[in-house]
Amino acid sequence: MIRVGIIGATGYAGIELVRLLTQHPQVELAHLVSHSYVGQDVAGIYKNFKGILAKDLEDMDLDVLAGECDVVFTSLPHATSSEVIPKLVAAGVKVIDLSADYRYNSAAVYEAWYGVPHPDPALLAQSVYGLPELHRDEIKGAQLVGNPGCYTTCSILGLYPLLQAGLVSPENIIVDAKSGVTGAGRNPSANTHFCEVDESMKAYNVARHRHTSEIEQELSLAAGQEVLISFTPHLIPMKRGILSTMYANLTGAYSHADLMAAYEKAYGDESFIVLHEEGSLPEVKFVNGSNYCHIGFVVDQRLKRVVVVSAIDNLVKGAAGQAVQNMNLLFGLPENTALSAPGWYL
Amino acid sequence: MIRVGIIGATGYAGIELVRLLTQHPQVELAHLVSHSYVGQDVAGIYKNFKGILAKDLEDMDLDVLAGECDVVFTSLPHATSSEVIPKLVAAGVKVIDLSADYRYNSAAVYEAWYGVPHPDPALLAQSVYGLPELHRDEIKGAQLVGNPGCYTTCSILGLYPLLQAGLVSPENIIVDAKSGVTGAGRNPSANTHFCEVDESMKAYNVARHRHTSEIEQELSLAAGQEVLISFTPHLIPMKRGILSTMYANLTGAYSHADLMAAYEKAYGDESFIVLHEEGSLPEVKFVNGSNYCHIGFVVDQRLKRVVVVSAIDNLVKGAAGQAVQNMNLLFGLPENTALSAPGWYL
Amino acid sequence: MIRVGIIGATGYAGIELVRLLTQHPQVELAHLVSHSYVGQDVAGIYKNFKGILAKDLEDMDLDVLAGECDVVFTSLPHATSSEVIPKLVAAGVKVIDLSADYRYNSAAVYEAWYGVPHPDPALLAQSVYGLPELHRDEIKGAQLVGNPGCYTTCSILGLYPLLQAGLVSPENIIVDAKSGVTGAGRNPSANTHFCEVDESMKAYNVARHRHTSEIEQELSLAAGQEVLISFTPHLIPMKRGILSTMYANLTGAYSHADLMAAYEKAYGDESFIVLHEEGSLPEVKFVNGSNYCHIGFVVDQRLKRVVVVSAIDNLVKGAAGQAVQNMNLLFGLPENTALSAPGWYL
Amino acid sequence: MIRVGIIGATGYAGIELVRLLTQHPQVELAHLVSHSYVGQDVAGIYKNFKGILAKDLEDMDLDVLAGECDVVFTSLPHATSSEVIPKLVAAGVKVIDLSADYRYNSAAVYEAWYGVPHPDPALLAQSVYGLPELHRDEIKGAQLVGNPGCYTTCSILGLYPLLQAGLVSPENIIVDAKSGVTGAGRNPSANTHFCEVDESMKAYNVARHRHTSEIEQELSLAAGQEVLISFTPHLIPMKRGILSTMYANLTGAYSHADLMAAYEKAYGDESFIVLHEEGSLPEVKFVNGSNYCHIGFVVDQRLKRVVVVSAIDNLVKGAAGQAVQNMNLLFGLPENTALSAPGWYL
Repeated sequence: MIRVGIIGATGYAGIELVRLLTQHPQVELAHLVSHSYVGQDVAGIYKNFKGILAKDLEDMDLDVLAGECDVVFTSLPHATSSEVIPKLVAAGVKVIDLSADYRYNSAAVYEAWYGVPHPDPALLAQSVYGLPELHRDEIKGAQLVGNPGCYTTCSILGLYPLLQAGLVSPENIIVDAKSGVTGAGRNPSANTHFCEVDESMKAYNVARHRHTSEIEQELSLAAGQEVLISFTPHLIPMKRGILSTMYANLTGAYSHADLMAAYEKAYGDESFIVLHEEGSLPEVKFVNGSNYCHIGFVVDQRLKRVVVVSAIDNLVKGAAGQAVQNMNLLFGLPENTALSAPGWYL
Repeated sequence: MIRVGIIGATGYAGIELVRLLTQHPQVELAHLVSHSYVGQDVAGIYKNFKGILAKDLEDMDLDVLAGECDVVFTSLPHATSSEVIPKLVAAGVKVIDLSADYRYNSAAVYEAWYGVPHPDPALLAQSVYGLPELHRDEIKGAQLVGNPGCYTTCSILGLYPLLQAGLVSPENIIVDAKSGVTGAGRNPSANTHFCEVDESMKAYNVARHRHTSEIEQELSLAAGQEVLISFTPHLIPMKRGILSTMYANLTGAYSHADLMAAYEKAYGDESFIVLHEEGSLPEVKFVNGSNYCHIGFVVDQRLKRVVVVSAIDNLVKGAAGQAVQNMNLLFGLPENTALSAPGWYL
Repeated sequence: MIRVGIIGATGYAGIELVRLLTQHPQVELAHLVSHSYVGQDVAGIYKNFKGILAKDLEDMDLDVLAGECDVVFTSLPHATSSEVIPKLVAAGVKVIDLSADYRYNSAAVYEAWYGVPHPDPALLAQSVYGLPELHRDEIKGAQLVGNPGCYTTCSILGLYPLLQAGLVSPENIIVDAKSGVTGAGRNPSANTHFCEVDESMKAYNVARHRHTSEIEQELSLAAGQEVLISFTPHLIPMKRGILSTMYANLTGAYSHADLMAAYEKAYGDESFIVLHEEGSLPEVKFVNGSNYCHIGFVVDQRLKRVVVVSAIDNLVKGAAGQAVQNMNLLFGLPENTALSAPGWYL
Repeated sequence: MIRVGIIGATGYAGIELVRLLTQHPQVELAHLVSHSYVGQDVAGIYKNFKGILAKDLEDMDLDVLAGECDVVFTSLPHATSSEVIPKLVAAGVKVIDLSADYRYNSAAVYEAWYGVPHPDPALLAQSVYGLPELHRDEIKGAQLVGNPGCYTTCSILGLYPLLQAGLVSPENIIVDAKSGVTGAGRNPSANTHFCEVDESMKAYNVARHRHTSEIEQELSLAAGQEVLISFTPHLIPMKRGILSTMYANLTGAYSHADLMAAYEKAYGDESFIVLHEEGSLPEVKFVNGSNYCHIGFVVDQRLKRVVVVSAIDNLVKGAAGQAVQNMNLLFGLPENTALSAPGWYL
């Protein structure tokens, strides 16, 4: 059994990890750390676990975690993660970090978008970006995985094959993304109040959302040149799910089949990528509750442009599910262990 | 492997059966019958199954079903079920019926509430009411199970122990129940149009909803005398879930602990009943997606009355999940096989 | 022009007052008081007023309010209202209070349900309960109106005529009420977080919600004897609206027409009461955005019981609209001035 | 009094016209035509009008409408409108058509996007495109107004000033639009079923939605050259509202103030355009229920691109409200008569 610790277990990503891992046949939930609820039973906070899981929440003790866990998931605010993780890494524990602190290839990019110098560039250099469809081999050998952001996972997976194959121009790429409210986290605020969210929607952090930089990093790798994108996140009155609508100019007179060939080449064997045939497009209900990423696209011959639509569950493939997928890779398990359930649809 | 057939596989209860059974380790989905989509892949209708399940939908052929299935789930309108089931039963197949046709102990009660004579009283007499918490032993030996209604499961489980123990009066019982819209089924109508449902709610079929008779049948058994109830269903702007709020007059000066003792006696070993301690009450998000029934209550000493609140997912414990639970009993499997996942909460 | 002051203008009831009063032909919004946003433009907080209303929010100055307003609406927490209102009343200003502080005939009842002695029993004795359909004449001559609660308005209006006419027993009355989330106010909390509310519902404050006492006060007046009720509020995933489902035992073999006669006698000339004919029942979408109260009922001859359903918009007839209705009465205006718009339905 | 007829009064746009016009001081609702509900009271279908409007729905009789109405609103499917309108126009009645049939300057464009030859090019040539902010003077003198589509109103108003002023390039314009479900109309279908829509979202009609052509027509006029756009509509789980997020490349190093100057020049005196200052952006709740169009934008200096966000209520400024605005213009009334209410926010 893999002994698992979760730091930040009562946040929305943390509790989704608990939900998924209670169904994992090779996991023991050894330590659940929650600053706010020390000493309380997790099933008293999230009562869906009544009768299923009885486990007291603990204060963070890195020595205990290092001594009694094989892997620790850290779900902390950025810049807080990097205060904790170096000690765990030094103690030889594997770490999967759900914050932004270990997602970057360049400390300078981190500083540009987060407004502070990266706290630990040396460890950053050792960390691996935890998007298995792009970096599976590095992940397998890593000790520290920077688990990607939700918007970023959805957007990168949608565009990567087209840039890699040179079928679209790196200029004028637009990513218009829409997210459910769990993406804003558990902390109550005017932004998450039911009466401010329901029957409404909005764009936010336009031209300055930090996930922009993560998307650009990976798409630039794909294209072999710098890719800069317009990224606009929107808040939608639903709990889970992200839909990214992406626009890119074709570099030639390509058909749907031409583009599909690039997707199939990139994703042919992937467990969690579902490609939609021509005439079909992803919807959020297809993926909610699941670790799948659905991708579809329309070639607009009139404008020589492709419109790509991708969908994930932000809490699963966009956070906790991808983290479990990374854990499976780290421990040599089948990659879809505990992750094979279909989306809920209803 | 248990070879399973589902008649009505693309209705909401039917597709929920598919969702649950794709995760069942001892089930082979042998035949999926759908009148509307013969010859189409189920994953083309419910695209959450893309990449997970490829299975063509078939027209109904009772000979094939009888010959190639160990158990058939029938999810058909009432009165239609009873045209199909006798042939399957005669052929020796086990049948779990999600319609109302085989839920009653008395053909006369059926006729009184459904307005037509029962089509097959002899088979009705052999069928077993599929609420495992009350009729587990009969279910194990049954060939035909009448799977209970959604409102009825939620309401009976909430009140049964109190009537059985004589702690509440059979007079003046009120069941005020609230359901999500999946309970209205997949057929589009003004009643299920998003713009007619969202930001609104309503009571319907007041004093004449057919589930009244099912609840009264089981509560009368519990009380050992006739119990008549006021039952009011409401439509709530959510997809899944039922919350029943029930009012009964205490027969003595009982405390919360007195009533809890009755619940614990009735449900002590049950896998899917979760009792809430004093001060805590069920909410729909605790059970959605799961087969659990949560029950809590408040003793109103001022009025000598108890208010019981119970919650289930109408598609799971109220339909497909309970049907799988019954299948597990019919085939001697652990009762919670494929049913142990917690509610989604988010 | 009536010079109006609003204390608590940026709470949900306060801003609904602003919304309604911007359409009132005889009102000048003289002072908007908001503790949290002093010095900011109201249209910067509630941006639906951009281009419509430019008005700075002010700190509370009772001398200014007393000197420059003809009427002040107070939308403050209970026990806070009663620190402010005596000074305004002493200065001769008319006051419509949306808190619970001046709704009671008896200081003892207030103390029993609010847990503190009433801070000003003398002024309480002068105040009038602001439900125009029951107390119109007293309101017209009042200086201080205690504007009723939302649940209470909906429930009292639904049951009053039947108790007054002696058609139902005062025993065993059940009020099962369901509210949208605006009823919980603007303050963000776990209770109002979109992800905790959407796709879920719950009962709360069972057997101890304070509105119980207000309903009992008015129904006891109607019945001419003490009426005690079970009152259960529920939180529903919608922004606005209350639906009350109420159960009462008939005192005789009455028909729908018999009961309708009592309603028509009680409400024949009322502007804001809409009675549904047999076979029709209120829904929240009929009243949302409006000051109307819809009432319908089903006579259950099987059980000798009536089920009454009433619906209001909790922010309008349950708070701000009723307050404007009271203001119209206080100033001799047509009662429906600025209140005649139909519900939104969509 | 203006005698008004509405053909298609029980569709969502039609009933919104009824809602707005019951508050219009100079309108008499003379004839409400509804194919489906002939002889029934409108308040029996839309029960929000109970106690407010009693008016029987009629079959369509063009002679009666022509003889007894000063203006007729036609809310019919495209190609059906053009069977009816010529007779009304010939009879001298003013007509405001909410279908697509009279929105185009070119019959060829209509044919290209609607797949049928325009049925009446001569009358098309006389009709005026009913977007008052762009064509006010022509509307005033028109007999037939082609009321714009919902997506088109929102998108054109957001981009027009920038193209007119030459601040953005006509190349590479992206319009990513999101709509509530009322935009899909009242007819129940899988697309509008609550359980298919709630907690989900999707893109649809990508690269081929007909509103594309309407937007291109007006933006080309603004730019003085052909403008072709990518237009992607999305369905969002809300009843009302459209948010358009639009991307255009700047033609120079312009600041927010430079662009704002163009908007102010274009819309300085407009009643229904609300411009957001730098740092603020429209949200759907600001406009729902109202005839206002909110516009805001972010200049992305990094990419030399502007992101414009505009919001309207699709049923009001996107349909019925704009139609009333046009009626006010046709009859020389203040343009905002019956249209000055703020958005609901809650």
